[in-house]
Amino acid sequence: MNAEIIAVGSELLLGQITNTNAQYLSKQLAEIGVDVYVHTVVGDNEKRLAESLELASERADLVILTGGLGPTKDDLTKQTAAIFCGRTLVHDEAALESITSYFEKRNRPMSPNNRKQALVIEGSTVLTNHTGMAPGMYLETEKCKLVLMPGPPRELQPMFEMELKPKLLDGSGTAITSRVLRYFGIGESQLETDLEDLIDAQTNPTIAPLASHGEVKLRLTVKHTDANEAERLLDETERLIQDRVGEHFYGYGEIGLMEQLVIQLKKAGLTISAAESFTAGLFTSGLTAFKGTSAIFNGGISAYSAEVKENLLQVSKETIKQSGVVSEACAVEMASNVRKIMSADIGVSFTGVAGPDAQEGKDPGTVFIGIAGFDQQTVVFPIQLSGNRQAIRERAVKYSCFYLLNELKRWNATQ
Amino acid sequence: MNAEIIAVGSELLLGQITNTNAQYLSKQLAEIGVDVYVHTVVGDNEKRLAESLELASERADLVILTGGLGPTKDDLTKQTAAIFCGRTLVHDEAALESITSYFEKRNRPMSPNNRKQALVIEGSTVLTNHTGMAPGMYLETEKCKLVLMPGPPRELQPMFEMELKPKLLDGSGTAITSRVLRYFGIGESQLETDLEDLIDAQTNPTIAPLASHGEVKLRLTVKHTDANEAERLLDETERLIQDRVGEHFYGYGEIGLMEQLVIQLKKAGLTISAAESFTAGLFTSGLTAFKGTSAIFNGGISAYSAEVKENLLQVSKETIKQSGVVSEACAVEMASNVRKIMSADIGVSFTGVAGPDAQEGKDPGTVFIGIAGFDQQTVVFPIQLSGNRQAIRERAVKYSCFYLLNELKRWNATQ
Repeated sequence: MNAEIIAVGSELLLGQITNTNAQYLSKQLAEIGVDVYVHTVVGDNEKRLAESLELASERADLVILTGGLGPTKDDLTKQTAAIFCGRTLVHDEAALESITSYFEKRNRPMSPNNRKQALVIEGSTVLTNHTGMAPGMYLETEKCKLVLMPGPPRELQPMFEMELKPKLLDGSGTAITSRVLRYFGIGESQLETDLEDLIDAQTNPTIAPLASHGEVKLRLTVKHTDANEAERLLDETERLIQDRVGEHFYGYGEIGLMEQLVIQLKKAGLTISAAESFTAGLFTSGLTAFKGTSAIFNGGISAYSAEVKENLLQVSKETIKQSGVVSEACAVEMASNVRKIMSADIGVSFTGVAGPDAQEGKDPGTVFIGIAGFDQQTVVFPIQLSGNRQAIRERAVKYSCFYLLNELKRWNATQ
Repeated sequence: MNAEIIAVGSELLLGQITNTNAQYLSKQLAEIGVDVYVHTVVGDNEKRLAESLELASERADLVILTGGLGPTKDDLTKQTAAIFCGRTLVHDEAALESITSYFEKRNRPMSPNNRKQALVIEGSTVLTNHTGMAPGMYLETEKCKLVLMPGPPRELQPMFEMELKPKLLDGSGTAITSRVLRYFGIGESQLETDLEDLIDAQTNPTIAPLASHGEVKLRLTVKHTDANEAERLLDETERLIQDRVGEHFYGYGEIGLMEQLVIQLKKAGLTISAAESFTAGLFTSGLTAFKGTSAIFNGGISAYSAEVKENLLQVSKETIKQSGVVSEACAVEMASNVRKIMSADIGVSFTGVAGPDAQEGKDPGTVFIGIAGFDQQTVVFPIQLSGNRQAIRERAVKYSCFYLLNELKRWNATQ
């Protein structure tokens, strides 16, 4: 099956928003074996939308329209599509009820033109909107399968996942199961090189590497008719992969490094504290982005200047004089002292050069991460990072999460 | 003039990347009065690209092709466009020199197919690539003006700004000057309502509101033939705007709240420190994202638990017992104590409920921001924020910057 995606909305043509729906849908459709050949964006203009629809329906088996399902005069996707199929618009009772309850739940009055949103194309299957008002539609015309979905990504994405995807898979008699493996400390190209023969030989499951924010994910996707068989195939492929790159693996699914750390600390019942020089709170603010962090975190110290390291963190004058603040010795004292000051089980420290200028004769990207509490001795991880100031700071925090997760794993094994 | 944008690249149809070039170009073209009617994305497929090009050239005055100018077999934009115009590809000496020097500068060997990148369509004006290798092209065909630009945004954007934009404006005999005014603490819709008649009556300059990350920008854009006259027109319009919403204004151009605060603190020669409860380092990590912050910042304390507030920040037991940690009284002591502990000129404090759960019977979004050092007395700003946990934390930091900038302005006036 091949598809075309038509996005409707003048705000896209004015450059006010990006067409992220086209990217999302393309990725999802690729995964279930639908080839996307063309994306089009047209404004809230009946004539140009009708032309694009005509053209797409001639070329593609499946045409997906996104946007223009709102209650205002601008929104004309439904009307235009109905004319294209030679059908009328009819009230859908379920959609109307869902819209009414949406307003009731929010204690807001429903305006007459919100009723318009419950109009659907005659003979279409309604795709329920789980996160908004405008219902989606699926219908088979003479020329193509036609889908209408709302523009806001937070409405479109659950609708695709829960309503449209099962329908598209329905015809094929197969289901799709995915597993996401997450890696850190290895680049996307290195991971691809290490797994090249596996990726090249992939059929079922397929293996798709995906780099994002300095981490790499592998998405294994299996087509199947039996869920147990699917799990077996995924396990088998995962084992082959982990044999080669398992040392960089840290978790599954949509849980990133920091959230994984929060989960593992909670599970282990350990509290953590941080002494941060060049990251100045980036670790602690990241940690507390997740709810319920008070169980594992009491506080931290941003020690940007040498004076604060000395006076508040009690790093010794000698250490600073002999080794400088960007040093293994300073990282040791920062981690072990903040742990004591904050009465935490674990202390982590960050000292380094964020740049753009060198400091103490050390280049930007020179970083020392200290971890105290798992052993008698504080361990220090010296790393050399590249990138601009903000990239160096963010990568340092990611590295610390990865090191902490490794230390936790080792510690758990000894308990 | 109206335009269509065609992006070429299978990676777009696979959903691996988003078509941000279409957004960028649409926004830029809207500013200089070019109406964009359609965006299209096609894969690295000669037939479909040729079809799209044919169609676009029938409808639009200006057709911009992005992507597919690289050195590999996949890249076929140039060849397809040349066939479309009935022209040949010729070597451009300047482009070849620029590519050669690109490799020399980086000490990397140049491969034969990089020479291919110096081929341009016969009779086209070359658009210099200031940040990469593939040259752009501008040519006038019988049907339309045709532009070819490279896909990577970091190559396309400077090429548009420096090479294409002047060419598009050339015909009109006018230049464009913009001025961006930045506001905080007022929503986009409120700002629009306050300025409705001005925006409706706008001709030259135009007034375009733009919301981003909780701030609102107004972009004034004037078309002119004389730079002094342009400044006069911008001043005049700005005055009308500031008379109505000036209390929310905090700066010009691309400098956000936090960077503005860093600049103003440096200018005033003042140092700052922060005591952060629910933001836990979000303020200090944001502050230190800018280089050279050591001139204004020594350190801060993340005091997440009541114990750390008491023991390290020396908030009195009585205050916590009587008012709770989410209180004006606690914010006062946190700000004034961290200022003393860190020997800073200014102390700022954050205490509040990030959510999702209530705390001390106070709802998520209840926030107190304390500022110490400008006056004898510490001032506290109580605010009620909405949104999820992370939105509340981020907005609180933005509010603190806005309050600090106001306090700084007041303080500067008394010096």
